[in-house]
Amino acid sequence: MSDDNTRWGRRRLLTGGGLAAGAALTGAGLLAGRQEQPPAAASVSEAAVGEATAAFHGPHQAGVATPPQAHAVFLALDLRRGTDRQGLARMMRLLCDDAARLTQGRAALADTEPELAGRPARLTVTFGFGPDLFAKLDLGGSPVRQLPKFGIDRLQTRWCGGDVLVQICSDDPVTVTHSQRMLVKDARAFTTVRWLQRGFRRAAGADPAAMTQRNLLGQVDGTIQPADDVHDRALWVSDGPGWLHGGTTVVVRRIRAELETWDAVDRGGKELTIGRRLDTGAPLTGGGEHDPADYAAVDGLGLPVISQFAHIRRAHVADPARRILRRPYNYDDGLTADGTPDTGLVFAAYQADIARQYLPVQQALAESDLLNEWTTPIGSAVFAIPPGCRPGGYVGQQLLDRT
Amino acid sequence: MSDDNTRWGRRRLLTGGGLAAGAALTGAGLLAGRQEQPPAAASVSEAAVGEATAAFHGPHQAGVATPPQAHAVFLALDLRRGTDRQGLARMMRLLCDDAARLTQGRAALADTEPELAGRPARLTVTFGFGPDLFAKLDLGGSPVRQLPKFGIDRLQTRWCGGDVLVQICSDDPVTVTHSQRMLVKDARAFTTVRWLQRGFRRAAGADPAAMTQRNLLGQVDGTIQPADDVHDRALWVSDGPGWLHGGTTVVVRRIRAELETWDAVDRGGKELTIGRRLDTGAPLTGGGEHDPADYAAVDGLGLPVISQFAHIRRAHVADPARRILRRPYNYDDGLTADGTPDTGLVFAAYQADIARQYLPVQQALAESDLLNEWTTPIGSAVFAIPPGCRPGGYVGQQLLDRT
Ligand code: HEM
Ligand code: HEM
Repeated sequence: MSDDNTRWGRRRLLTGGGLAAGAALTGAGLLAGRQEQPPAAASVSEAAVGEATAAFHGPHQAGVATPPQAHAVFLALDLRRGTDRQGLARMMRLLCDDAARLTQGRAALADTEPELAGRPARLTVTFGFGPDLFAKLDLGGSPVRQLPKFGIDRLQTRWCGGDVLVQICSDDPVTVTHSQRMLVKDARAFTTVRWLQRGFRRAAGADPAAMTQRNLLGQVDGTIQPADDVHDRALWVSDGPGWLHGGTTVVVRRIRAELETWDAVDRGGKELTIGRRLDTGAPLTGGGEHDPADYAAVDGLGLPVISQFAHIRRAHVADPARRILRRPYNYDDGLTADGTPDTGLVFAAYQADIARQYLPVQQALAESDLLNEWTTPIGSAVFAIPPGCRPGGYVGQQLLDRT
Repeated sequence: MSDDNTRWGRRRLLTGGGLAAGAALTGAGLLAGRQEQPPAAASVSEAAVGEATAAFHGPHQAGVATPPQAHAVFLALDLRRGTDRQGLARMMRLLCDDAARLTQGRAALADTEPELAGRPARLTVTFGFGPDLFAKLDLGGSPVRQLPKFGIDRLQTRWCGGDVLVQICSDDPVTVTHSQRMLVKDARAFTTVRWLQRGFRRAAGADPAAMTQRNLLGQVDGTIQPADDVHDRALWVSDGPGWLHGGTTVVVRRIRAELETWDAVDRGGKELTIGRRLDTGAPLTGGGEHDPADYAAVDGLGLPVISQFAHIRRAHVADPARRILRRPYNYDDGLTADGTPDTGLVFAAYQADIARQYLPVQQALAESDLLNEWTTPIGSAVFAIPPGCRPGGYVGQQLLDRT
């Protein structure tokens, strides 16, 4: 297996396409213990999609290394004036109690529609803290800072920033909405809603053979990720402030895709832009999707087969331990009167260190990436994702309980 | 089997929960020929969700009697000035060609992302004609007219009316967005987009045991439908203008659910409002979900067990051949800053005759239905849904090709 095979890919194969129920998909089981998974059932019962669960408790928060669910909401909250460190700690305790129940298919404590909780469908709830939170609550230096402004950015304030991230993912869209409602009810005394971005991927079970998925531009997306053997190093924080050890960081970019002009490009042009084939997702230098790209290859005229400005060349990080974990969702916010779509990616990337891993890639892409012609970043936010918690504890406890 | 068992319910049981692939779920096979279905596979391969198809061609349009898919878009288009009868006919021919291909997992003719078409996931595309179209194109009297204004209505123009309905349903959300884009591209020379409503139900495979589903208010929804033996009579038009025979009509109401105040009601109050239990969906007079409600039953004080103003009593139509077919979707349009959700139902009801079947129910509900306290109609539209077409033909041909 080449180093470019992703953990998700392998895991999906092992568990039979992401439909394995229960503990097989938990963050803890997946990443900490590295236990053998139960053998994949040759076929799955139909209830598998609804009843499958991902553990909430464990050394890492779920929703990061978890194979991406079909539906997601990214919710950014801002502290209300008057919410102090104790207040935030109280809120996190409430939300973690809700999440611990809902992810296991049990109703939240004050659940007003308890029957809706019965189909978790691999529900995960992931919490993060934004840079401003640290100053507001005098928590010490923030381990993350907002990205610098790039020339390609057309950021809209309504998609930027935020004190607390609540990321809710599930294979079932009703479960996403219900969980969001229960969590927001417990958060609203302490915070206001800054922004909310809803996204989707292929339905669970719709595309089990593919380890990666096509985005709305039609491209195979998600091929190159941190390699398996260095996955943990690329993903989980192991130095700096102790409260973040076992945690990670996330960059959430809202990137509009200009489908109108993209669709005017012919297939050759589209393939040149990315550096990969549209049909198979293989590099233009040949082989299959998971074969390495040959960046040195030249054509008969001596020109590089993969353009100097192709997206994958610009984004490529040779050291697999420094790669980012991309877990993007599509968004579709409707149409203008003349039929122009408002679609794109809620691009979420996870890495131990934004400055060392994410920024160099983003800088290289901002400088010159053919894809920039058809994509526009309109939102940007960063969050530190604390490690997971134990039953009875809450996410962020090591940070917020300090005196 | 009681007369209250729905065709969907029976069909889901017969086909193993809606995951049966291919022709088993086609409108034609389902309703016209009443052929025996292929036996349900004891288990389904994981690709079943993505690869399942519903026939596009047949005596009735698919997407009406088809067991509801997980995702839907209702798209209302208005004729551009200058689009005449021939123009609309040309557009319908284009869109039906697109739909015939996309629903079978093949790319549309000018598909710019052909690989996205490979996972139809029971895709259906259903077309309808609104009342104004008939006057605009001099097509004779419209078989449908907008509903009268009800006291409970708080209609917003942006969710009302429309010349042409394009209803796109699939178990895969990426397929819905891609199909929408392909169809709108071919429609835009002839029409503009008036409104678009996106909705969802439980994911395919998430809740296979239940013949009905819970909505975002937590209620079991979809229990009482036209009875099996009179289903066709309730649903398909058999008199009036010949071009509509084998067709139907749809009312699309956008109904906001006031979850904030609904959640303040206790379980007893919620059950009284509908007249059914929250846990099982059974009538308050006892039994299971599919047992008939006893509207004559009184309690120890002589008061009716199911209130005079309970939603199901007000909405009940004793004659099963006059019932409407409800095929509602949930919508979730996000949150205000203080966490108030903007959710509700895209309530779609199909019937042979709106005046005879839908209106009396709507009137009874508008007059006095306890549920009105927590629900607000904010959009309303009606469309005539022509019968299905044959390969080479198009939906609406009998109407538009007349001289
Ligand atoms: C709408 C915006 C974007 C689209 C449509 C897009 C699409 C793609 C596609 C199709 C691939 C090739 C297959 C794969 O390895 O996944 C790819 C690779 C990649 N993209 Fe993007 N991308 C977008 C934005 C970004 C951004 C903002 C970043 C990071 C700042 C990024 C980082 C990467 C990386 C690291 C790779 C793998 C490169 C390699 O080593 O081969 N992409 N992207
Ligand atoms: C947000 C709005 C609405 C909600 C939440 C809602 C909910 C429900 C629920 C929970 C039931 C009982 C279970 C069932 O048979 O499905 C029901 C029944 C029914 N509803 Fe609604 N409903 C709404 C609006 C409407 C509207 C606008 C109509 C038609 C104008 C309607 C017509 C019916 C009918 C005909 C029944 C079956 C009554 C019977 O014979 O028992 N509903 N509804």
